[in-house]
Amino acid sequence: MRVGVLTGGGDCPGLNAVIRAVVRKGIQQYGYEFLGFRDGWRGPLEGDARPLDVQAVRGILPRGGTILGSSRTNPFKIENGVERIRENLAKLGVDALIAIGGEDTLGVATKLHDLGVKVVGVPKTIDNDLNATDYTFGFDTAVNIATEAIDRLHTTAESHRRVQVVEVMGRHAGWIAIHAGMAGGANVILIPEEPFDLDQVCEWVESRFRSNYSPIIVIAEGAVPKEGQLVRQSQELDAFGHVRLGGIGEVLAAEIEKRTGKESRCVVLGHVQRGGTPTAFDRWLATRFGLHAIDAVHDGDWGKMVALRGTDIVRVPLAEATKELKVVPKELYEEAKTFFG
Amino acid sequence: MRVGVLTGGGDCPGLNAVIRAVVRKGIQQYGYEFLGFRDGWRGPLEGDARPLDVQAVRGILPRGGTILGSSRTNPFKIENGVERIRENLAKLGVDALIAIGGEDTLGVATKLHDLGVKVVGVPKTIDNDLNATDYTFGFDTAVNIATEAIDRLHTTAESHRRVQVVEVMGRHAGWIAIHAGMAGGANVILIPEEPFDLDQVCEWVESRFRSNYSPIIVIAEGAVPKEGQLVRQSQELDAFGHVRLGGIGEVLAAEIEKRTGKESRCVVLGHVQRGGTPTAFDRWLATRFGLHAIDAVHDGDWGKMVALRGTDIVRVPLAEATKELKVVPKELYEEAKTFFG
Amino acid sequence: MRVGVLTGGGDCPGLNAVIRAVVRKGIQQYGYEFLGFRDGWRGPLEGDARPLDVQAVRGILPRGGTILGSSRTNPFKIENGVERIRENLAKLGVDALIAIGGEDTLGVATKLHDLGVKVVGVPKTIDNDLNATDYTFGFDTAVNIATEAIDRLHTTAESHRRVQVVEVMGRHAGWIAIHAGMAGGANVILIPEEPFDLDQVCEWVESRFRSNYSPIIVIAEGAVPKEGQLVRQSQELDAFGHVRLGGIGEVLAAEIEKRTGKESRCVVLGHVQRGGTPTAFDRWLATRFGLHAIDAVHDGDWGKMVALRGTDIVRVPLAEATKELKVVPKELYEEAKTFFG
Amino acid sequence: MRVGVLTGGGDCPGLNAVIRAVVRKGIQQYGYEFLGFRDGWRGPLEGDARPLDVQAVRGILPRGGTILGSSRTNPFKIENGVERIRENLAKLGVDALIAIGGEDTLGVATKLHDLGVKVVGVPKTIDNDLNATDYTFGFDTAVNIATEAIDRLHTTAESHRRVQVVEVMGRHAGWIAIHAGMAGGANVILIPEEPFDLDQVCEWVESRFRSNYSPIIVIAEGAVPKEGQLVRQSQELDAFGHVRLGGIGEVLAAEIEKRTGKESRCVVLGHVQRGGTPTAFDRWLATRFGLHAIDAVHDGDWGKMVALRGTDIVRVPLAEATKELKVVPKELYEEAKTFFG
Repeated sequence: MRVGVLTGGGDCPGLNAVIRAVVRKGIQQYGYEFLGFRDGWRGPLEGDARPLDVQAVRGILPRGGTILGSSRTNPFKIENGVERIRENLAKLGVDALIAIGGEDTLGVATKLHDLGVKVVGVPKTIDNDLNATDYTFGFDTAVNIATEAIDRLHTTAESHRRVQVVEVMGRHAGWIAIHAGMAGGANVILIPEEPFDLDQVCEWVESRFRSNYSPIIVIAEGAVPKEGQLVRQSQELDAFGHVRLGGIGEVLAAEIEKRTGKESRCVVLGHVQRGGTPTAFDRWLATRFGLHAIDAVHDGDWGKMVALRGTDIVRVPLAEATKELKVVPKELYEEAKTFFG
Repeated sequence: MRVGVLTGGGDCPGLNAVIRAVVRKGIQQYGYEFLGFRDGWRGPLEGDARPLDVQAVRGILPRGGTILGSSRTNPFKIENGVERIRENLAKLGVDALIAIGGEDTLGVATKLHDLGVKVVGVPKTIDNDLNATDYTFGFDTAVNIATEAIDRLHTTAESHRRVQVVEVMGRHAGWIAIHAGMAGGANVILIPEEPFDLDQVCEWVESRFRSNYSPIIVIAEGAVPKEGQLVRQSQELDAFGHVRLGGIGEVLAAEIEKRTGKESRCVVLGHVQRGGTPTAFDRWLATRFGLHAIDAVHDGDWGKMVALRGTDIVRVPLAEATKELKVVPKELYEEAKTFFG
Repeated sequence: MRVGVLTGGGDCPGLNAVIRAVVRKGIQQYGYEFLGFRDGWRGPLEGDARPLDVQAVRGILPRGGTILGSSRTNPFKIENGVERIRENLAKLGVDALIAIGGEDTLGVATKLHDLGVKVVGVPKTIDNDLNATDYTFGFDTAVNIATEAIDRLHTTAESHRRVQVVEVMGRHAGWIAIHAGMAGGANVILIPEEPFDLDQVCEWVESRFRSNYSPIIVIAEGAVPKEGQLVRQSQELDAFGHVRLGGIGEVLAAEIEKRTGKESRCVVLGHVQRGGTPTAFDRWLATRFGLHAIDAVHDGDWGKMVALRGTDIVRVPLAEATKELKVVPKELYEEAKTFFG
Repeated sequence: MRVGVLTGGGDCPGLNAVIRAVVRKGIQQYGYEFLGFRDGWRGPLEGDARPLDVQAVRGILPRGGTILGSSRTNPFKIENGVERIRENLAKLGVDALIAIGGEDTLGVATKLHDLGVKVVGVPKTIDNDLNATDYTFGFDTAVNIATEAIDRLHTTAESHRRVQVVEVMGRHAGWIAIHAGMAGGANVILIPEEPFDLDQVCEWVESRFRSNYSPIIVIAEGAVPKEGQLVRQSQELDAFGHVRLGGIGEVLAAEIEKRTGKESRCVVLGHVQRGGTPTAFDRWLATRFGLHAIDAVHDGDWGKMVALRGTDIVRVPLAEATKELKVVPKELYEEAKTFFG
């Protein structure tokens, strides 16, 4: 049996741990051969692959990123994409695929499975918004990085009696924001699931100052104000004559400063959240995902995705992962609100 | 309603996060008053307590240890212990207790509940071996500290072609060993659940050297050899004329060196694993445990313990937590073995 | 003797360590009393102070920020500012001042000294650009935070074959950029001391891609292009209809992408660099600065600043610290260039 | 010109950074070729070497340990050792050597230089006790690891009202102990330079408890009691019937517990201090050492060692490095004592 492996979408700490586990167990226990496709679906599309043996996956467990490269290539948006993949798999003698990725990558995997390609999926998203699994690897690392940043920002906010806004990742779901916000002791957490009310935010800010502390606001990049709010006109120009304005975090900080008169600053954590060595949990989860994915291949359990449920790794239909977005439940957000203001 | 809070047993990152969440929600949402008892069950036994208000729990979320102190005092082993607790609770006007602790502390809580004391429990053990909850806070921190240490030891082992033994916590269960060992890429993991065979360990060591790498062995402090093994006589003396020999890790390293001729060293991570700031996950779990514990008090749901199941916090009977030890399942240990040797 | 202590300017890890050392040694060795002025020069200006005893400085050694608060208040820009300070010092019985701060704070201290106020200075700048001392505390912490971020960004850049620009602090001097850039293995480092040539930067970027690696560019916030470069017109609009454009890092990333066709991203590390717990070196340096500052007070050595020279703490005239900016020497930048491209 | 590079003695974070800098600059600027000798002086002794090009040193900057391996082989203690080295250098066409190491490795280098071998040295010792340089790389990493451990141990000590002894590296000099002890807020620091008085130590311990805090004692592995002290007889046996007793830290903890009645524990940090990724400072210092070492080769400045003086890298005669041990000066220890008790 020759198995192809690929990683698609944004990179994520733990991808290499999955690859290593797949290859180590596949070779030692099942005697398989492995091909690593380069750059997500671009690899099988263009027949770009290299052999993966035990030596190739040595030392990669603690390394962030992916040794296979990644891309957002979608074969269904390319002429004859699926046909070309079939041809390349046949040409390279690849019997089955393990696709490690998020919504897009697994969406392609689902469709390919429906077309008869033997494929097993491993869920990956830094944002933790994939359905059917308690957590995805990479998320814990992102949350720890964001929490450490919040820890650091507390002291600066206090020393200067300043509002500190921290924009974290999360375009469609507020998982990083709510986890890091609760862990970091944020005074306000704003998530895409619940449009925020600017008056309410300013009230929390002022209440925090009244208790003689400085507020930290954690906001997901996809959070939005209630309709009609924040249509202000900024005119501050930068060195090149452009209006200087960033994402929602910066807009919010500027607006709070305008409304409350309190000095406000924004830090956008950005890509730092998704790089570097994975936490112990993410290495553990990614490794177990890899071990169970190759077991699914061995069992011929095609069209399945490995998933975490409690402390168990289970298999669910690939389609389940992408059928809806996993968002922060209302009750959890209510728990977080205990500490607002 | 006046609620007493206490922390018992070995300290653990996250204790302060529980206390803070209990007090913040209890005051803001339910209008309760709080008394913090000092040093576990010694507090109610001797009536040693201090008021806990919002100010008292400010800034403690990221701090390791416990602001209430801890001890291993067991009122059931002290004359009139239970009576004295009843009297002190009455005298101090304490209506209910939240007991945060492990097997011993919750064992006492269970018995007190049977005797009519209104008590709610929060599970705590760095070792993760309490029944009825997926994880306990503090464990993730310990695993990350151990994993980081293993990461560091790899490079030394490689540079000197040396066997490196790392002894981690876990007297009765190998949770820290197996999590940190898998996350750290250990070549052998030894846990209390499965007595090890010294010949097999040495074979793994030699196989690792044959692939031109240096072995890292992670061993739980409670791991033991198969019967009849390791009855060697060491005669190495230290500066004071004493035979120099430590715990199982050191014994194992010495034995491996004797048998394989390879230089072997042992590091005992010890108390470093249980101190300091909690990881984001542990702060999150501890905070949610605290929020749900005070809800249980509010609901009058006495004799219950909060517990993690998947991503939910649930309530289980206190007695369940201590009725048996949660050990590493055989299948999980088999997964880990994929990477041995 | 009653000594006043204040911290001015931007906050910086290590400020609390200085305060602790000053107070501990001053009380134990010399029997002094201490007043902590709030928010830099605003404190003495408005007579806003609180007593500092051993208890007040307990546990602050590892904490970032400053327990005294900070501000940029300049008494020489306020009517009767100096007079009011004199009056308040007299009223509060303060015999001498220890001023901990950067260019502005020490500039005020210098002038006050010239006017007869008994003052000793402690140099503080995250940017390391104060003259007359090898290093200032806080700088090592900032460099380590930036280096860790660069470490993390490498794996993302590689996985996506992307240009990653990292904007670090340093308005007038490139110390953080060159230290973190060299430590993080950056492929290009751009500093305020040497205006950069955009063609050259793009050439380095392309050479890096030619060796099959992805470039990391570290740029100080104060770095500027050679005259006439970068006057491009961006028209990208954000959600609020504003042109979306940030600091020099973002401008550079956009320009590189335009010129080379390679996907380019920018992360602005911002305030995360100046908060949180100090590194061991910064705690050590800050502690020693504090111990030597109170010795200078004891010796009546007014108008002096403590400074690091090699491994020694020495005293230099306050005026020296601010007489010129300490910039990155040309030879050091040449050393860094070894690794460009 | 073909240059040989070797690393000897205990491993140390930063060794790879030196190798990388030497090779990168040597190839790009001077057009040299490089051979990496394996395992310190064993490499040239046995002619065991491999070519080092730019590819071979890619990605090693942040990695601890040494890609060349290390050993304590001393050619002067082996028959015809020097002759064999000469022959191998000639056979392999090696014109000059860069020896990276501590007292032993540089001692050999000094003697070889006296015999006409062209050699340049780079000082390396985790203990920071080499003469003629302000600091050596690896030391800052060790100090940070030890400081972080002390930070963590504080909370455990407080929670349990316990004496915590932390044994750190430093056989002949107390540099790590005094730096980490001061940075970590230790209450007692014991170093080899000054034999300690047990009564005094117990007095500090008790004074700390009297202020309602728990003492942390940092002790260098080479610290010794005053003559005649600590000749106690321990009889505690371990599972194998051996007297259970470790290094000086454990002995001290046992003795303090016996004398003061306070529960006392010891953690021996051990090899964790010398492994893993270097701090930013160590990467910076190691990189600059490497750049200046290859410059010395280019200048034909044989028999020299690079050294740090303030912020400058200078060259000193190799013999100076080893002519005496650099110990903690008495005044510095006095500074640290400000915080004892």
